[in-house]
Amino acid sequence: MAPLVPKSGDAIFASIDRVNAELFTLTYGAMVRQLLTDLEEVDVVNKQLDQMGYNIGVRLIDEFLAKSNVSRCVDFKETADVIAKVGLKMFLGVTASVSNWDPEGSSFSLVLDDNPLVDFVELPDTFQGLHYCNILSGVIRGALEMVSMKTEITWIRDMLHGDDAYELRVKLLKQIPEEYPYKDDE
Amino acid sequence: MAPLVPKSGDAIFASIDRVNAELFTLTYGAMVRQLLTDLEEVDVVNKQLDQMGYNIGVRLIDEFLAKSNVSRCVDFKETADVIAKVGLKMFLGVTASVSNWDPEGSSFSLVLDDNPLVDFVELPDTFQGLHYCNILSGVIRGALEMVSMKTEITWIRDMLHGDDAYELRVKLLKQIPEEYPYKDDE
Repeated sequence: MAPLVPKSGDAIFASIDRVNAELFTLTYGAMVRQLLTDLEEVDVVNKQLDQMGYNIGVRLIDEFLAKSNVSRCVDFKETADVIAKVGLKMFLGVTASVSNWDPEGSSFSLVLDDNPLVDFVELPDTFQGLHYCNILSGVIRGALEMVSMKTEITWIRDMLHGDDAYELRVKLLKQIPEEYPYKDDE
Repeated sequence: MAPLVPKSGDAIFASIDRVNAELFTLTYGAMVRQLLTDLEEVDVVNKQLDQMGYNIGVRLIDEFLAKSNVSRCVDFKETADVIAKVGLKMFLGVTASVSNWDPEGSSFSLVLDDNPLVDFVELPDTFQGLHYCNILSGVIRGALEMVSMKTEITWIRDMLHGDDAYELRVKLLKQIPEEYPYKDDE
C-alpha cells in the first residue's frame, strides 16, 4: 500500500490544471509584502497568513478528495503520509518526509527540503519573527478540520531563519465527531 | 513561423515548475479580499493590483526570456503573438487570441476565453468597479517595459462584469531607446 502513495501524488499532479510556480511565488511574495505594509506588526501578519491559509484549506480539501480518490484515512499515521506524499505534491509539486512521531501517535513533523513559496526570498533583520510560509500551515489546518481533525501546527525549522530545512509540527488536538446533515434529536 | 509559436508555449509550459492552479486562484482571491479590507476603495485596490503585477512582470520577463528562447521581436505584431501564445501559456497555462489591430499597428486586443484567476469568483454589487484581474495587465505592462516597450493596458471586457470574454487592450505608447550599461558620454 505505502509505495503507491507517492506515485499517486505524481499522477494527480500531472493531471490537474497548473500555473507557473514562479508566478505563484512572486504573487505570494507580493501579498506578504503588502500585508507587512498594511498590517505593520509581524505577529498580526503571521496570524493573517494562517487565517488566509485556513480559508483556502477549507476549500482545497474538496478538490483533494475529488481528484485523489483518497478515502477516509484509517489513522493519523496514514493522514500524515497522505499530506506528505499526496497533498503537498498535488498542490505545490513537492513532497515532505514524516518523522519524529510522539509515543501516542498524535503529533509528527513534516520536513520539506524544497518549498516553492520561498524562492528568491530573503528576510530582512526587521522581519525575523515572520513565519513567511504560515499560509501553508493554515492550509493544512483548514483542510484537516474539514475531515474532522482539529490540529495545532507550528514551525519548528525554517530555512529563512537559517535552519537546514522546513519543519512543521502537526499535533492532533481532537477528532471532531462526524456531523450528519440531519440529526434525530434536532 | 506562426504555427510554431503555440507549440513552443506548450513545450515550455510542460518543462517548468508548476503549482496547482486552484491553490494559485484561491491565494490570489485571498489577496484581493485582503486588499479590499485594508485599502477599502476599489480604485485604490485596482491601482495596487496593477502595481503588484508590474513588479512581478519586471521579474518574470527574465524567466520568460531564459526559458522561451524568444529573441527580440521584430515588431509589435510579433510581440502580441508571443504574449498571446507563449507568455500566457507559459505562466497561466492558457492562450489568448489577438484581434482588433488599429491601422497604425500600435494597439491590439488580447481576448481570453479562459482565465484561471477567476475560477469560483463572483463580484458582489458593491465591487462592480473592481478590475479583479488587474494584476495580469500589470504583469504584461511590467514585462514589456523591461524589453523597451512602454504600454498602456486597459480592460475592455470582463466576464466578472457580465461580458462574454476577457479583453485587454494593449496600446504601445513608445519604444524606449536601448540603454547600454556603459555609455561613451557618461
